[in-house]
Amino acid sequence: MHKIKSKYDIFKQKAHIIIYGTSTKAGRYFDLILLALILLSILLVMMETVTEFDFKYHAELVLLEWIITGFFTIEYFLRIISINKPWKYILSFYGIIDLLAILPMYLSFFFIGTSILSVVRSLRLLRLFKILNHPQFSSQSVQLRKAINASRGKIVVFIYFVLIITIIIGSVMYVVEGKQSGFTSIPAGIYWTIVTLTTVGYGDISPVTPLGQFIASFVMILGYGIIAVPTGIVTAEIAKTVQRDSNHSHIPCKDCGAEEHHDNAKFCHSCGSSLLK
Amino acid sequence: MHKIKSKYDIFKQKAHIIIYGTSTKAGRYFDLILLALILLSILLVMMETVTEFDFKYHAELVLLEWIITGFFTIEYFLRIISINKPWKYILSFYGIIDLLAILPMYLSFFFIGTSILSVVRSLRLLRLFKILNHPQFSSQSVQLRKAINASRGKIVVFIYFVLIITIIIGSVMYVVEGKQSGFTSIPAGIYWTIVTLTTVGYGDISPVTPLGQFIASFVMILGYGIIAVPTGIVTAEIAKTVQRDSNHSHIPCKDCGAEEHHDNAKFCHSCGSSLLK
Amino acid sequence: MHKIKSKYDIFKQKAHIIIYGTSTKAGRYFDLILLALILLSILLVMMETVTEFDFKYHAELVLLEWIITGFFTIEYFLRIISINKPWKYILSFYGIIDLLAILPMYLSFFFIGTSILSVVRSLRLLRLFKILNHPQFSSQSVQLRKAINASRGKIVVFIYFVLIITIIIGSVMYVVEGKQSGFTSIPAGIYWTIVTLTTVGYGDISPVTPLGQFIASFVMILGYGIIAVPTGIVTAEIAKTVQRDSNHSHIPCKDCGAEEHHDNAKFCHSCGSSLLK
Amino acid sequence: MHKIKSKYDIFKQKAHIIIYGTSTKAGRYFDLILLALILLSILLVMMETVTEFDFKYHAELVLLEWIITGFFTIEYFLRIISINKPWKYILSFYGIIDLLAILPMYLSFFFIGTSILSVVRSLRLLRLFKILNHPQFSSQSVQLRKAINASRGKIVVFIYFVLIITIIIGSVMYVVEGKQSGFTSIPAGIYWTIVTLTTVGYGDISPVTPLGQFIASFVMILGYGIIAVPTGIVTAEIAKTVQRDSNHSHIPCKDCGAEEHHDNAKFCHSCGSSLLK
Repeated sequence: MHKIKSKYDIFKQKAHIIIYGTSTKAGRYFDLILLALILLSILLVMMETVTEFDFKYHAELVLLEWIITGFFTIEYFLRIISINKPWKYILSFYGIIDLLAILPMYLSFFFIGTSILSVVRSLRLLRLFKILNHPQFSSQSVQLRKAINASRGKIVVFIYFVLIITIIIGSVMYVVEGKQSGFTSIPAGIYWTIVTLTTVGYGDISPVTPLGQFIASFVMILGYGIIAVPTGIVTAEIAKTVQRDSNHSHIPCKDCGAEEHHDNAKFCHSCGSSLLK
Repeated sequence: MHKIKSKYDIFKQKAHIIIYGTSTKAGRYFDLILLALILLSILLVMMETVTEFDFKYHAELVLLEWIITGFFTIEYFLRIISINKPWKYILSFYGIIDLLAILPMYLSFFFIGTSILSVVRSLRLLRLFKILNHPQFSSQSVQLRKAINASRGKIVVFIYFVLIITIIIGSVMYVVEGKQSGFTSIPAGIYWTIVTLTTVGYGDISPVTPLGQFIASFVMILGYGIIAVPTGIVTAEIAKTVQRDSNHSHIPCKDCGAEEHHDNAKFCHSCGSSLLK
Repeated sequence: MHKIKSKYDIFKQKAHIIIYGTSTKAGRYFDLILLALILLSILLVMMETVTEFDFKYHAELVLLEWIITGFFTIEYFLRIISINKPWKYILSFYGIIDLLAILPMYLSFFFIGTSILSVVRSLRLLRLFKILNHPQFSSQSVQLRKAINASRGKIVVFIYFVLIITIIIGSVMYVVEGKQSGFTSIPAGIYWTIVTLTTVGYGDISPVTPLGQFIASFVMILGYGIIAVPTGIVTAEIAKTVQRDSNHSHIPCKDCGAEEHHDNAKFCHSCGSSLLK
Repeated sequence: MHKIKSKYDIFKQKAHIIIYGTSTKAGRYFDLILLALILLSILLVMMETVTEFDFKYHAELVLLEWIITGFFTIEYFLRIISINKPWKYILSFYGIIDLLAILPMYLSFFFIGTSILSVVRSLRLLRLFKILNHPQFSSQSVQLRKAINASRGKIVVFIYFVLIITIIIGSVMYVVEGKQSGFTSIPAGIYWTIVTLTTVGYGDISPVTPLGQFIASFVMILGYGIIAVPTGIVTAEIAKTVQRDSNHSHIPCKDCGAEEHHDNAKFCHSCGSSLLK
């Protein structure tokens, strides 16, 4: 009895290394296969929503769906049993998504039409961001993330400003254009303002009165200037990280380990010992 | 009699501190509650314009409108009596907006349909810009405002240039395309040019003749280049403020005069002597 | 006889100073009045093209048109007689535009419908660029012009590249989508490609086949990246001029007059004499 | 016999110099004529697809097509015989394109409708990129290419991120809006997301439900921020190359070590000693 328990422990340990780890070959292969299966499962859900395709290959699609759901179910339970604190995983963001990804198929036994909820599976794509931690990309994505984080304060101020402008212009356009032009309500006016300010311009709602078109022209030229602001913010921050990368030596101080020295620095800025030795 | 007067004076003083000041707790709470009420009042006006919603909850909406209008009326009179020079407030930008925000509801007793003018209330949203003076955002918004102010000269020159181009292209397109393509007049042609140059592209008016489409292609590629100019202006200015504020101390080393030290550098990168003495 | 000739000479000289010069008060007023009349004349042509407006005020518009045409005719002849080499003016760019601006009205005696050609008058707006030489704007517009000139080489290379891509994609989309989707010919396909790449997106032509939509998605993401290039070029150049302005002292060397010294330069980079004396 | 062989050898050698070389006058003329013919051939294919034009000038177009195809055929065989390893050319990228450019016309003898495949000829336009190696443009295009290459890593990370976002939003919108709004399938939802995120905004598919419009507004403002990222990346890289090439010499002063001298500076800005010694 003890021996069996031990075997099960070894199995759990192995499963943990393969599923959660990335240091072994098997662990890395598991990650790759999982990503491939996630992509395939999303492709399947996509194909099912294309009416003509679903009409022709419905049986095959459903079969494949069940196979993949099977795999995901096994993965889900392996994840639970191979971890020390199962509830932490179950209640984590990815844990919930993993459950939601398999649930709709089982629910489809009891309720009709729940298989459409498999769409939630696309959230599993978020696991693909893990790849960005791969050494080949990590320096690039770290630089980008830094620049975006540094811009956050300004971007929040900017979006706050844009939203206020948007509500005011949306209200004005509702009064000026009125219901017959498609500006059926103030929220519709705000929707139109966002569509215009961001230069998307669907054309589903567009001003028809001369005054409305005049205000619209003004909004567009404003949007022209406004689009420059987030671009300017992000560009300035990226330029800073890019330049910092080229202006600073990446060799850490041998005494204290401090980094980000100037290219031609002779002494460590943190401990003062020579960098040239 | 004197005592009553004095009591009223104290009340006026207190009201002034609460309404106009931000240094006391009550003053800050008043600001927050006012902002919340402004947002709520705008939400109400919005909801009223959504036909289905208004149909169902008309009575409730009107009741809430009156309650908020009541609050705003009290606030308006408190603002007048608690200030030393009431006319200065009444005739100020915010004073007029505050009056316009409550007037339409009272006018609706005498005239039908004036309640739509409550839309003017959305201008009270401008008071929300006050939040940007909050320490958490102020450094960010000051930086942005500086960069935008510094770009103003160039932006004016740029918009002047764009407007002239716009009138010329709008006139040409009117002649080339003519009334049957939707280019019903030169102003319509100018409207189309702005819609195209800013890359909004509603599609409510679009060229149909080969020559018109050729000119349109040219305008779009021009717009491509032109959109780069305001972005470039704003980005350059933001980059300047960002770099000026970036992580280098501007204090030169006292021993060798070297500059561009890190903010938290303790030793000069050039001669190794302490920066902290 | 000699005296009359002399008087005419004085008149010619005076006219020359007023019309071509900007140093006297009269010369500057003349420029301002001319710009106002040009703007008014363009407004008139615009108003005439708005059917409802023209219907109501046709007589007034025509009268005003003739008055302005009269002014422009007098100005045209004064420009000719007050200059030493009249043919140089007559055959110059502005000379031809000035003539084309008045001709259509006189031709309307003989031919019907030529008054629409008054649209050509909008080209007189180009004279408004003169204002940009005004000291208040000149430094800004010089900076912008410098940055745009410096970017020209790269922009030409870029547009060359974009045009080749455009022709190839336009041809491919014509074959993929075909006539029934609005891609009636290869030029139409190229027009669509430009509309899409520049993110204008009218929607007058849009892909309907899955393959076409897939290629379109690819083109849009390409356009996303491509729009970054001219912006990057112009921004980099503007940033350079902006930074040069802030990094370099504008005080010329007292010995040799050389400019563009560093802010903390102690010696002239051209003659080596001290800048601090 | 030997003599004839020799003559043929000389002819081959000459053909090789003219076709593949650019050092002789004849070689450069050949390149120019070839580029002109390629442009003309593409113009012909374009014109043929314009129904009205083809209807009028069908015979002339077909004749010209055959003449150009003749030229291209001769060029193709000359390229083969004048090169030492013919198969290397035949199987090269340009070799295959050159063959595909002439094949459709000959196939049109046997099959109807193959002449449309002449569209493939537009790929020959890629030969026009050769011009960018011309000294006048090469420095500009090298700078651009450098900046774009340096941005590649970040752009890949960025597009990867955008694609995941796109699939998730596309799936959500398909569920929210459903088939009656034009969101007929998840791929259609993804197509709409790309159209919106890139601010193209055709309007062929656009949300109609309030929730859908709310999400769309969110996507647009997201797209606003997102478009800033590639622009920021490319701009930062271009700014780096532009500044590196800018008007400062990188040679430090031999006496004091000061840097950032003007390109044509004769004296050090810091110590005043000559830079020319």
